[in-house]
Amino acid sequence: MMVSFTCDYSEGAHPLILQRLAETNRVQEAGYGFDTFSESAREKIRAAVNAPEADVFFLVGGTQTNATVIDALLKGYEGVLAVHTGHIAVHEAGAIEESGHKVLELPSHDGKMAAADLDAYLSSFYADEAWEHMVIPGMVYLSFPTEYGTLYTKKELTEIREVCNRYQLPLYVDGARLGYGLASDACDVTLEDFARLADVFYIGGTKVGALCGEAVVWPRKAPAHFFTTVKQHGALLAKGRLVGVQFDTLFTDGLYQKISRNAIERAMEVKAIFQEKGIPLKIDSPTNQQFPILTSAQMTSLDGKILFEVWEKRPGGDCVTRFATSWATTPEDVLRLREALD
Amino acid sequence: MMVSFTCDYSEGAHPLILQRLAETNRVQEAGYGFDTFSESAREKIRAAVNAPEADVFFLVGGTQTNATVIDALLKGYEGVLAVHTGHIAVHEAGAIEESGHKVLELPSHDGKMAAADLDAYLSSFYADEAWEHMVIPGMVYLSFPTEYGTLYTKKELTEIREVCNRYQLPLYVDGARLGYGLASDACDVTLEDFARLADVFYIGGTKVGALCGEAVVWPRKAPAHFFTTVKQHGALLAKGRLVGVQFDTLFTDGLYQKISRNAIERAMEVKAIFQEKGIPLKIDSPTNQQFPILTSAQMTSLDGKILFEVWEKRPGGDCVTRFATSWATTPEDVLRLREALD
Amino acid sequence: MMVSFTCDYSEGAHPLILQRLAETNRVQEAGYGFDTFSESAREKIRAAVNAPEADVFFLVGGTQTNATVIDALLKGYEGVLAVHTGHIAVHEAGAIEESGHKVLELPSHDGKMAAADLDAYLSSFYADEAWEHMVIPGMVYLSFPTEYGTLYTKKELTEIREVCNRYQLPLYVDGARLGYGLASDACDVTLEDFARLADVFYIGGTKVGALCGEAVVWPRKAPAHFFTTVKQHGALLAKGRLVGVQFDTLFTDGLYQKISRNAIERAMEVKAIFQEKGIPLKIDSPTNQQFPILTSAQMTSLDGKILFEVWEKRPGGDCVTRFATSWATTPEDVLRLREALD
Amino acid sequence: MMVSFTCDYSEGAHPLILQRLAETNRVQEAGYGFDTFSESAREKIRAAVNAPEADVFFLVGGTQTNATVIDALLKGYEGVLAVHTGHIAVHEAGAIEESGHKVLELPSHDGKMAAADLDAYLSSFYADEAWEHMVIPGMVYLSFPTEYGTLYTKKELTEIREVCNRYQLPLYVDGARLGYGLASDACDVTLEDFARLADVFYIGGTKVGALCGEAVVWPRKAPAHFFTTVKQHGALLAKGRLVGVQFDTLFTDGLYQKISRNAIERAMEVKAIFQEKGIPLKIDSPTNQQFPILTSAQMTSLDGKILFEVWEKRPGGDCVTRFATSWATTPEDVLRLREALD
Repeated sequence: MMVSFTCDYSEGAHPLILQRLAETNRVQEAGYGFDTFSESAREKIRAAVNAPEADVFFLVGGTQTNATVIDALLKGYEGVLAVHTGHIAVHEAGAIEESGHKVLELPSHDGKMAAADLDAYLSSFYADEAWEHMVIPGMVYLSFPTEYGTLYTKKELTEIREVCNRYQLPLYVDGARLGYGLASDACDVTLEDFARLADVFYIGGTKVGALCGEAVVWPRKAPAHFFTTVKQHGALLAKGRLVGVQFDTLFTDGLYQKISRNAIERAMEVKAIFQEKGIPLKIDSPTNQQFPILTSAQMTSLDGKILFEVWEKRPGGDCVTRFATSWATTPEDVLRLREALD
Repeated sequence: MMVSFTCDYSEGAHPLILQRLAETNRVQEAGYGFDTFSESAREKIRAAVNAPEADVFFLVGGTQTNATVIDALLKGYEGVLAVHTGHIAVHEAGAIEESGHKVLELPSHDGKMAAADLDAYLSSFYADEAWEHMVIPGMVYLSFPTEYGTLYTKKELTEIREVCNRYQLPLYVDGARLGYGLASDACDVTLEDFARLADVFYIGGTKVGALCGEAVVWPRKAPAHFFTTVKQHGALLAKGRLVGVQFDTLFTDGLYQKISRNAIERAMEVKAIFQEKGIPLKIDSPTNQQFPILTSAQMTSLDGKILFEVWEKRPGGDCVTRFATSWATTPEDVLRLREALD
Repeated sequence: MMVSFTCDYSEGAHPLILQRLAETNRVQEAGYGFDTFSESAREKIRAAVNAPEADVFFLVGGTQTNATVIDALLKGYEGVLAVHTGHIAVHEAGAIEESGHKVLELPSHDGKMAAADLDAYLSSFYADEAWEHMVIPGMVYLSFPTEYGTLYTKKELTEIREVCNRYQLPLYVDGARLGYGLASDACDVTLEDFARLADVFYIGGTKVGALCGEAVVWPRKAPAHFFTTVKQHGALLAKGRLVGVQFDTLFTDGLYQKISRNAIERAMEVKAIFQEKGIPLKIDSPTNQQFPILTSAQMTSLDGKILFEVWEKRPGGDCVTRFATSWATTPEDVLRLREALD
Repeated sequence: MMVSFTCDYSEGAHPLILQRLAETNRVQEAGYGFDTFSESAREKIRAAVNAPEADVFFLVGGTQTNATVIDALLKGYEGVLAVHTGHIAVHEAGAIEESGHKVLELPSHDGKMAAADLDAYLSSFYADEAWEHMVIPGMVYLSFPTEYGTLYTKKELTEIREVCNRYQLPLYVDGARLGYGLASDACDVTLEDFARLADVFYIGGTKVGALCGEAVVWPRKAPAHFFTTVKQHGALLAKGRLVGVQFDTLFTDGLYQKISRNAIERAMEVKAIFQEKGIPLKIDSPTNQQFPILTSAQMTSLDGKILFEVWEKRPGGDCVTRFATSWATTPEDVLRLREALD
């Protein structure tokens, strides 16, 4: 039997979620997020992020969430600052532009934005005599972890926040894999830190144990009529309970943290295997995505046993690859990988 | 205990769907609709609509589906023709306009478009010397059943199709409640008819037994790169299996038809109750939505027992209300309604 | 020789404008509206509207101006209220929707919006339990004169303003033919009134003696970065002087008022001719557009002599037509019309 | 008296244009480009580009033209390839994104796109397994001359065309300063070449002697309903004659070529002055824009005498500057510059 490390959305949902969906299935509830499960989930998230006044909305997927939040924050003439490897800059099929906004690109340091780059962009932007002919920067977009599995330190996030403050730019954090970032040994920030440092962020469910769903958290207050913006973007579930029940389960008894930790432990085992075998890593990732550079021979040995993603084919036959673990990865899965590489 | 007839999305999913989600939960699958469950569901739908070459895509919700399909069909300078009570004209928070397209409104006959009105609009449009200064009609949007629970006959649909042919306009049918339309005794069209008469339609899941999900069917061929359009609209699920498993279940052993029929039987019982009590119906609906006009006294008698939706408050205190049944409505639920009104 | 009453943009510009363009032609000036002519024109307009703090921008044409101003005022989820015969609702090829906004239609009373209709729309909108699923009204659009040549009284405008105040909606007045409205004997409002009652309005140049150009007046303050919004909409002239010189000329020694008055005097002569001949008028217009209902025989008699626009062909052969006068119409032109009809 | 080399739109229009506007001023003509002057201009342009079937449209300004043409060519899910210094990528305030399209950026070689870079982008795009999640390249945008005054050779354009053919991408050339490119001694392409190599290009009027106006040339055929797209983008002049008369004049007796040549001759004199003074040029431009790197002392010596644009302030005080000549620049203007630098 094949084991897949292709991505962190290969399975369904954590069994407790399915169980809770079954238990609540016949309860009649209001639609559009006004159900009691969603309300309970919102309360638990407010507690977890320590922002009792937070507005919390449940959307379905990441691209949709990014497009909706960014459109809600930007004025028509504004763009969003992101590193050129950011998900919104590359892999969302132009969802941001579809709403009329440009993604203003900054250099990427293994997926991360540097506060100094951000500062330099903004100061040179306003120093340009033609700036009013250009797209005006209206917000900053980060992902945590990044698309390359890397993490910002609290110091780095604070520095970015300070630049944002200087230019009065809201800061938005894409947390598609937020759990896997927070569970990493290399992480020195907490959910509370995000509620303090970001104007809005989302807690990813789809890749961290849910069937679907992302929790958008506005620690202070959502923009006026954000509900309508969600609807306009086709992001409002009639059965809002579907995501409500899931987040209610994930934020009960620390399930979200626990299953995130599993992914990290498995990822570190995977990383250790590559290191033991002398396989170089493209990026030193402390989270659930690992990027070994495999030879043709190594890839052949995995053939028919282990699935993974090829990110970049290099001349000569080596490939940068991605191996992702998740809440669902078992020690046995990792063992199979080890055996296949032996 | 309260019984709710507020809408047809008050419960979770049909138990067989939950069961199948649980059974398949640990199977590792490809993302974005390339999983085996989605492929199986597509095959079953192709068979059910008798269009072996059909392209089938699974999206999440209705507004999203409408916005994505319409954007895929229209050129930038085109608009979509719909009755003024159509969902896209009223209750989608401007999702169509967000993509840059105008909804061109026609008269509504209990929610239905008349072929004669469509023809008159188009002929007078092109007779207007200024037509090139106006939004050019690029497609026709219908819902079946309509927002008022009414149904087109095969003759009516054929007439509309003929006008579409004359003006080379694609015809799109919003089937959010398609099952409830097809299961009605008043219905003389079939799934196959839609595959023949429409250029694209969707088979609604959210309101017909699924947790979420709509199956978009292009009986002949989807527009180029529709997958990317879906992604751009934030409508692509990472775990496409979530909708794939659900439609695979719904289209196994006629489940979709069976549970749709339940809604109709319950609705006809509900309708009979209103008629027995001499309660007038705003619209003579043959489907799962009924629109009784209740007095204050009648509403008081339901208070605390039966939930429903108020559509229109009339001077004097009478209200046009909506009572919806669904796959989940039981004979006991109907009994409660009868008792409350007695 | 044919005389055309087809529209009010059949000729070039008032000769004083051409003369002033020639005189200033070799002066080197800054671009994008920062030239001295534009600044001078802005000062004269501020004086004319009695709003010394007004922000004034010069755009090129009417549709462009409407799309730019409306996009600057609306949030993403908002729409603009207009009568269903309004220019933005019909004859702008979807320019408003292109920016992502819906035109929310109200009844038209010979082209005018009734304060009562506006009020009714808004109160029933917010009374609808589903209002957050709908496009939220974000501003009001009027034209003065309307597309049918009719005028609001000061009382009517004040009532609309009061509804706007109650719902905190900005009021925008499309003044494509503003001069012709103000010059009418039936008009009891002034430029100053518009600066007081509207949040933004434009003074039309294209149809009132200029080659092109509309002056957008924000009596209090333009939205932040309106310059950039203008640029984004492709509405920023490199040679801003072209419109600046024109408005500077039009607002010197009351030229705009004088030439507007000519159009009205000629229009009233035209109207009198139709009335003398017993030709019914579709609308009792007090401005430069007249709408006689002509018989086939009458149209034949004009053939080859007088040009006009056909608005509506009626069964039987009668046509609703439009005859427009302008700053350029001469008494001789009117005489020709009289002779042709004799 | 100051002499300005700030830009090529500092003056009004060539005197012959003003004269012709005055001569034709009282002629009554149809609106929206259906006037006889526009038709005459179209015929002359068809002859000049040797494309008798060409569709020619007159728009007002460059950003507007780019946004309209690009929106007409792209499908909703497509983006436009341009170098990262391209006008649409930087200085149009997001007009392309406003229509929902992403600008896909390629390296810039002194403002030029390399066919090899284009080819590499496209081949690696389609080699990426995730390409359907990304914005699909739908056309190529070039400017001639570029924003840095540089020119493509016929060989370079042909190579780019070949890549376009291979990927079936339309090629669009922004000719805001086309005349100045064609008139350069370094230019080996002709108007006919553009009609052959490009799918659409525009002949710039605003910067080459007109008050405003750009002529969009579709050598084979415009997309269906391009007129309506122009209207939708607010780019349709009611008095289309304004641009028609201007292009009719510019394309009579080779005026466009003659006045373009003046700009080049003056620019080469300006360039020679800088070279004589040992002032380095940032870019070796063969057209009407020159980019000397001036010291603080040199800039001081120009102070109060010569206006120019600062493009980039360098540490130490040197500045990259731009000096633009135009149809209106006189030998005396150049003399003043020489004197000021002596």
